[in-house]
Amino acid sequence: MIAELISVGTELLLGNIVNTNAAFLSEECAKLGISVYYQTVVGDNAGRLKEAIEIAKNRADVIILGGGLGPTEDDLTKETTAEVFGRALYLDEHSKALIEGYFEKLGRDKSAITANNWKQAMMPEGCIVIDNDNGTAPGVILEAEGKIAIMLPGPPNELIPMWKKSIAPYLKSKQPEILESMTVKLCGIGESRVETEILDLIDAQTNPTIATYAKTGEVHIRLTAKAANSEEAKAIIQPVYWEIKSRLGQYIYTTEENITLEDTIVDMLKAADLTLTTVESCTGGLLSGRIVNVSGASDVFKQGFVTYANKAKRKLVDVKKATLEEFGAVSEQTAREMAEGGRKAAKSDVCISITGIAGPGGGSEEKPVGLVYIGCCVKGKTVVKRYQFSGNRQKVRDYAVVSSLVLLRDCLLNHMEY
Amino acid sequence: MIAELISVGTELLLGNIVNTNAAFLSEECAKLGISVYYQTVVGDNAGRLKEAIEIAKNRADVIILGGGLGPTEDDLTKETTAEVFGRALYLDEHSKALIEGYFEKLGRDKSAITANNWKQAMMPEGCIVIDNDNGTAPGVILEAEGKIAIMLPGPPNELIPMWKKSIAPYLKSKQPEILESMTVKLCGIGESRVETEILDLIDAQTNPTIATYAKTGEVHIRLTAKAANSEEAKAIIQPVYWEIKSRLGQYIYTTEENITLEDTIVDMLKAADLTLTTVESCTGGLLSGRIVNVSGASDVFKQGFVTYANKAKRKLVDVKKATLEEFGAVSEQTAREMAEGGRKAAKSDVCISITGIAGPGGGSEEKPVGLVYIGCCVKGKTVVKRYQFSGNRQKVRDYAVVSSLVLLRDCLLNHMEY
Repeated sequence: MIAELISVGTELLLGNIVNTNAAFLSEECAKLGISVYYQTVVGDNAGRLKEAIEIAKNRADVIILGGGLGPTEDDLTKETTAEVFGRALYLDEHSKALIEGYFEKLGRDKSAITANNWKQAMMPEGCIVIDNDNGTAPGVILEAEGKIAIMLPGPPNELIPMWKKSIAPYLKSKQPEILESMTVKLCGIGESRVETEILDLIDAQTNPTIATYAKTGEVHIRLTAKAANSEEAKAIIQPVYWEIKSRLGQYIYTTEENITLEDTIVDMLKAADLTLTTVESCTGGLLSGRIVNVSGASDVFKQGFVTYANKAKRKLVDVKKATLEEFGAVSEQTAREMAEGGRKAAKSDVCISITGIAGPGGGSEEKPVGLVYIGCCVKGKTVVKRYQFSGNRQKVRDYAVVSSLVLLRDCLLNHMEY
Repeated sequence: MIAELISVGTELLLGNIVNTNAAFLSEECAKLGISVYYQTVVGDNAGRLKEAIEIAKNRADVIILGGGLGPTEDDLTKETTAEVFGRALYLDEHSKALIEGYFEKLGRDKSAITANNWKQAMMPEGCIVIDNDNGTAPGVILEAEGKIAIMLPGPPNELIPMWKKSIAPYLKSKQPEILESMTVKLCGIGESRVETEILDLIDAQTNPTIATYAKTGEVHIRLTAKAANSEEAKAIIQPVYWEIKSRLGQYIYTTEENITLEDTIVDMLKAADLTLTTVESCTGGLLSGRIVNVSGASDVFKQGFVTYANKAKRKLVDVKKATLEEFGAVSEQTAREMAEGGRKAAKSDVCISITGIAGPGGGSEEKPVGLVYIGCCVKGKTVVKRYQFSGNRQKVRDYAVVSSLVLLRDCLLNHMEY
């Protein structure tokens, strides 16, 4: 099956936003064994959108459209696609009720819903309506003229869940071959090193295929097998996974698609019956924010400290004045005292501390922008590591957070060995 | 002038990398007043690349190709473009010498340069060669059949400097008109309400054009004018901006492209000489993380508390046991005590507190998932607001953070009025 992606939105053509949806959808299609030959981006313009859909209709089996489903006059995706496939639009009462419910949940009066919102409940005749749990614009699957047109709202936090819940299973059911894939997630190792370690496997790949993806501070290896059935596909993947595990096992934290690094860590803490605290300076709460994103984190994480100023480091987690004066806030010594002091202040088993220079200001020759110290104290045993990141403020902070999770995982593994 | 972008590379179609070049080139074109109507991504496949170039040639004045200029057999951009425009390739001695020089700089022997590297010095007849200071693949400008084809290597660290140094000045010299735009950023109001308020302006738009963009908890309105020069363009934008301001002024927090909502708030705090603390439960540090993303936030933000457990709420910010027992952790009363207690604990002027149920578990009929209370205490005067968000855990948390920034802005505006 051949797919073509069409992203709709003038903001993409103006460069206001980066088209991350296209990367997500392409990766998802690859997982399903669907070949993407073209991605197109077109603005909120009926004539040009129509041309893009017509071209795609001629050269692809599946057209996946993202964006242009909202309530405004600019939003033309359903109208234009329906026109290309000669379908009329009707008011879908089910979607209308969901939109009303959405506003009701927000505590707004029904009469306050502006008329343009009902545009979102207009559907091409004969389509499958895809509910949107995170917004007011439903998605659409339209099977017509031997082709499939899929329409999804543009915001990634709506498009991604709808894809996973409804579109991926639908497309999987349309695929004649069974395609099974396994994602091996690694942390604490770079992409080029991963590639070097398994280059012979990559070079020899046929079935399963092997692809590496660099994520922030992580590397994912995707193994994808084609076979007559799921068991056969899994049997093709297994020996390759074992080979990869024998070479890179220490860096692998999961092979589950939906498990994140922070999920793994919360699970490890639960298993070892340990509680965690965070003491953050340059990351300002991003680490605790990420840990709290794990549903059920409350079992192991009770509190965190954001100690941005030196005074806060002293007062909240008892970093010594002399340490700050002698070594500075961004130093091995301060990171150590933050981790140890945070653990005591919160009466927790484990504490992670982060202190660094995220930039753009504040750097010096001795302590350049991107210098970060991360401390990890597990039941009184403290490890501090020095990192030098590059990139802008946001990137330094993101890498600091991932690196602290990687260090925490290492320390927990060491702790559990004894 | 109308441009079309063609990004060439199978890695884009597999979703291995995000197409940041397209966003960069689109924004650059917008700045030059060049309209981008389509972006296309195509793999390393001669037939499909040829089709993409032919389509672009029919509907654009300028075709900007990124990628596919390297030394491997996969790299087909020059060959295919030259074919579409009926030009032969020749060995460009200047480029050949530069490639030799590049390898010399890397300390490699000339004889070690593999033959396929000379492919990079093959140029379409009659083209302008664009030197590459950061790699071996030169760029190309080809003027043919009344069209302009621009070819640049794919790596952003080569493409971006070549664009800035050579391509942008070249295209500017070809442009008769200047394009100027202004982004009006609003918070505390939804996209469909913004559209309803200015629908007559949107309907009547010609020059400037008016487009609205929904961001998480924010709406951006972009006004773009075409004119002979920058002053004239600004004069076209101004009256439309004033009209929008007269209708929606209270929601506008900036008209600066690079200013975020948290930047505005840090500036307001600085101007009013106020310090800020945060006390977060369900958002777990995401609010403080966002504030700390403002370079220079340390002037107003010294510390924050992540009080995820009830015990932490009591111990760190002195929420009363009776309050938690009688009203629960997610209640107006608890939010109020968190804001007031956080302010006292940190000895700050202002404190924002967030407590809510991010889900997926923990909801009840009385207190459903998505219920969030946000408290804001400015110098002892406290406001608490109740919110009901929908969507998954991540979305509830994201909206809680933006809403707390919006509430903080409102409270600061009120405070400064007196």
